[in-house]
Amino acid sequence: MDPNCPSRLVLDRVAEKWTGLVIIALAEGTLRFGELRERIGSVSPKVLSQTLKGLERDGMVRRRVYAEVPSRVEYSLTELGSSLREPIRAVQLWAEQHATSVMAARERTGD
Amino acid sequence: MDPNCPSRLVLDRVAEKWTGLVIIALAEGTLRFGELRERIGSVSPKVLSQTLKGLERDGMVRRRVYAEVPSRVEYSLTELGSSLREPIRAVQLWAEQHATSVMAARERTGD
Repeated sequence: MDPNCPSRLVLDRVAEKWTGLVIIALAEGTLRFGELRERIGSVSPKVLSQTLKGLERDGMVRRRVYAEVPSRVEYSLTELGSSLREPIRAVQLWAEQHATSVMAARERTGD
Repeated sequence: MDPNCPSRLVLDRVAEKWTGLVIIALAEGTLRFGELRERIGSVSPKVLSQTLKGLERDGMVRRRVYAEVPSRVEYSLTELGSSLREPIRAVQLWAEQHATSVMAARERTGD
């Protein structure tokens, strides 16, 4: 596969560590930064912020700033981002269905 | 989502940068390390090796060493690894179908 072909570049984005979890979290609706972070659980603000910037740049996430004090920032999926829900959900389902087998293998190999 | 729940740990593995590309490459059949590297295109030997070790540990990839000189090492998918082909393929298809939209968004935001 040519590393510079568009679908490969897009696949790289999708395969980034936090992309899937952000898409899954936002699939349930609009969230503020802090809410999103709580939902995901173990991501640093810096890394979450980078992930969101990448997804915004790629047209998958919409960022809305409300002129309030303190300012309110909300994130939601665009139509493009929403279309990624199904395939990401398929991967998530696989993880749920096969978690026991993977954990058993991890035990066997002793890590 | 609890960061320590098994399906989350498994999802972390699946979402690792090179996991998907390794699964896609090995879905076509057994490959030697060098062949796998060529197939993926832009991965360093060190990172590919780490990815393969992780996938082996998690029971998704089988590593066979043949006692030849020079020794031959081959990688293939286990049954568990094969079962991940479908969901990964769904994500890959999405990337192919939406690459143009993502690239257009990337142009608009000027990166």
